[in-house]
Amino acid sequence: MPAIPFHLRRSVEQVEEGHELAPKFGEDGLIPCVTSDATSHEVVMLGWMNADALRLTLESGEAHYFSRSRQKIWRKGATSGLVQKVIEARIDDDQDAIWLQVEIGGVGASCHVGYRSCFYRAIPTGENAGSALIFTEDEKRFDPLAVYGAAPNPTQL
Amino acid sequence: MPAIPFHLRRSVEQVEEGHELAPKFGEDGLIPCVTSDATSHEVVMLGWMNADALRLTLESGEAHYFSRSRQKIWRKGATSGLVQKVIEARIDDDQDAIWLQVEIGGVGASCHVGYRSCFYRAIPTGENAGSALIFTEDEKRFDPLAVYGAAPNPTQL
Repeated sequence: MPAIPFHLRRSVEQVEEGHELAPKFGEDGLIPCVTSDATSHEVVMLGWMNADALRLTLESGEAHYFSRSRQKIWRKGATSGLVQKVIEARIDDDQDAIWLQVEIGGVGASCHVGYRSCFYRAIPTGENAGSALIFTEDEKRFDPLAVYGAAPNPTQL
Repeated sequence: MPAIPFHLRRSVEQVEEGHELAPKFGEDGLIPCVTSDATSHEVVMLGWMNADALRLTLESGEAHYFSRSRQKIWRKGATSGLVQKVIEARIDDDQDAIWLQVEIGGVGASCHVGYRSCFYRAIPTGENAGSALIFTEDEKRFDPLAVYGAAPNPTQL
């Protein structure tokens, strides 16, 4: 199968109003990807893709990301079984962000900490701004230690 | 009102499992923010915030972003009336991404091109990978020229 073409970015009109895929990768070669659960509509993670990860995702219909901590492409769920099957992929107006709506395998979680969504804490706003974060999930869906063992934690300080 | 505290990032456990807001901004001083419509659950944009934009958002309960093209903070809807009232703000596991669920003012759109969502084009996947982008919205919600006039287009090639 020939590689999916990424078109040159020639004009604002082409990028915003056209039918050509012309993604813009940052100086680090990456484009951000918002991933939401196609059933619950919850945003489950914000990942990053390089050109190869984006092509692999589109061709295979399974989400692939680029791990910034490990500096390599990663098929989501390769270790955990929490595979993300792409229901719909979208690109934004200036083509510098991706949105995937996915069906999630296994126990239906996407977060390496064990929660359903990586966004498991609310930040108080308005008159409560500055108060402690509030957990929005009662319990973890899986035990990270049992799933990932001694693999390095991707969180960077 | 004293500024909302952003805590030092001292440990993975504190960042992932704690109640302290300790956001990680990139080398450019920005953190990505996914914004979705709290009613339709559609992802409407991916924006960027610097520390001041994040604090303004949390304190005011209205989305503020940092415009990378104009290099300044921007209260969403200041020009267009398409204000985003924050229903819930969340932060992710390693605290390097924000998710806002918002109610959108005016005609209920968030995209400077005139569409409801910035993600108005689907990218074909699987056996259709490589085909032309598919528009997912039939018509624009507003006329960008009428709303923004001669203001510079934020899309960068």
